[in-house]
Amino acid sequence: MRGALYRKLAVVGCGLIGSSVIRAARARGVVEEIAVADPSQAVRARVAALGLADSVAEGPAEAVAGADLVMFAAPPLAIGAAARAAAAALEPGATVTDVGSVKAAIAEVFAAVLPPGVFVIPGHPIAGSEESGPDAGFAALFEGRWTILTPQARRDAPYLAALERLTAFWVALGAQVELMDERHHDLVLAVTSHLPHLIAYNIVGTAADLEEVTRGEVIKYSAGGFRDFTRIAASDPIMWRDVFLANRDAVLEILGRFTEDLQALSRAIRWGEGDKLEELFTRTREIRRGVIEAGQETPEPDFGRHRKGD
Amino acid sequence: MRGALYRKLAVVGCGLIGSSVIRAARARGVVEEIAVADPSQAVRARVAALGLADSVAEGPAEAVAGADLVMFAAPPLAIGAAARAAAAALEPGATVTDVGSVKAAIAEVFAAVLPPGVFVIPGHPIAGSEESGPDAGFAALFEGRWTILTPQARRDAPYLAALERLTAFWVALGAQVELMDERHHDLVLAVTSHLPHLIAYNIVGTAADLEEVTRGEVIKYSAGGFRDFTRIAASDPIMWRDVFLANRDAVLEILGRFTEDLQALSRAIRWGEGDKLEELFTRTREIRRGVIEAGQETPEPDFGRHRKGD
Repeated sequence: MRGALYRKLAVVGCGLIGSSVIRAARARGVVEEIAVADPSQAVRARVAALGLADSVAEGPAEAVAGADLVMFAAPPLAIGAAARAAAAALEPGATVTDVGSVKAAIAEVFAAVLPPGVFVIPGHPIAGSEESGPDAGFAALFEGRWTILTPQARRDAPYLAALERLTAFWVALGAQVELMDERHHDLVLAVTSHLPHLIAYNIVGTAADLEEVTRGEVIKYSAGGFRDFTRIAASDPIMWRDVFLANRDAVLEILGRFTEDLQALSRAIRWGEGDKLEELFTRTREIRRGVIEAGQETPEPDFGRHRKGD
Repeated sequence: MRGALYRKLAVVGCGLIGSSVIRAARARGVVEEIAVADPSQAVRARVAALGLADSVAEGPAEAVAGADLVMFAAPPLAIGAAARAAAAALEPGATVTDVGSVKAAIAEVFAAVLPPGVFVIPGHPIAGSEESGPDAGFAALFEGRWTILTPQARRDAPYLAALERLTAFWVALGAQVELMDERHHDLVLAVTSHLPHLIAYNIVGTAADLEEVTRGEVIKYSAGGFRDFTRIAASDPIMWRDVFLANRDAVLEILGRFTEDLQALSRAIRWGEGDKLEELFTRTREIRRGVIEAGQETPEPDFGRHRKGD
């Protein structure tokens, strides 16, 4: 469809997102060679068995050697050590990016450990599923989704050219690209992704711990709303642990707002203030209309299903 | 496919659920005649235009006259007045049921206002979508779903026969039927449906009120988890206002547990206790496996889509 944008792509950490990037990049013909590094022997074996990469290594240094695009796709808190291990082997002029759900913490790590000769452009594709590991990835994951890039403050021509090339890469994978300040990214995602996950994990945990209602009942009657939360709360535990730790301040800030609002709602229920409930429940419908109009409505479960035949 | 189970079905309140019952009952040939009562002129006009019923009335008395199955499908807090208005016109020997998401409050109202000659069997189909009104209903809504019936304490043969017939009605509509004590129903549903809706309404409200993150951003990047909440938070405001008011004690009890757990989670994030986060996030995955194994995984959005071609 189009020529290669990069000669060699190195993916460090090959789970759902890393393996989806590889599948999509290969399907679109935008890279010539693919190298994978992953600390897990089990993951490396699956990557080899699936034929995802031209080479598979344990440490990042081997994979990133000679790569003009290096993508860290490990859980957020594992990226620091991986970047440190890769630093000396990075090709001058390579673009270094990532796919982490938090950006300020990763930008700091990159700034601290990467050599000056590479173009650092942190990134985050807003796409995923509750499944994880290299088997869970699929080429269409990024289609019609947003990828946010949080470029550094520099505006020199070579950096801008690298930014343009990385943008073209994501567009080739089917995504739309938006540039954003990393701190603003972390606040936006705290609202649209991190808090929803935290709430879902929490409600499923609460339900599992009840004594008056059995786990079997919770599952059996989950169609009333609960099962959507179980899907979100089945997301990768390590990745999400890291997200909350690495984006602590924004998550706690948004969680504080949520809790305040929930207390007011609880009070309205206790005192039978139906008007307040109705006012909120009517207002929240508008947001839904916005989501539908913005074409953000493709439900995640469908990805899960399409994936099997991918 | 099978003979009629009831001669005349009267549906009092014709929204998503009422109109779905009508469509399904007609499709399965389990009733001979259908009467609708609804206080809204707009709803009555739509019911007439859609040809859903053989007769459409404003007040319940006219619709329930001569009916051997009377189903109250109005919002929970509107059922009392509707039942009171219908009481004198009810046929002796008729079965009176409802589809409300709360059961103890409705059972009390029924016991207080209905005449002794009818068989009162409150019920609740665990099915729905975020859309509402008579246009939103569809015949397949109950297929593969559970309907919970909360029969009264009486165990006389005519009552048991009425219970058996109502069970056959729901089975004919594609549902599986479970009998339950009404107070236990209210606690189970507080967990699996009412709290999830409350949380979804709350998080969407919190997100809409932020100043640092625009509504446009919230919508644009909703694929990270938030959009699932927007769907739930688009559910009928009046119905859900009534649910929280009518099931106040159970909702506040479960909400209290949820809030305690959320505070512990918040503390773990603040103090960087990754082990605690990982332990919870790993545990919640088991519940998801249960939901999938129990075949409760058909996602709601698919109903929305199938509906259009219904």
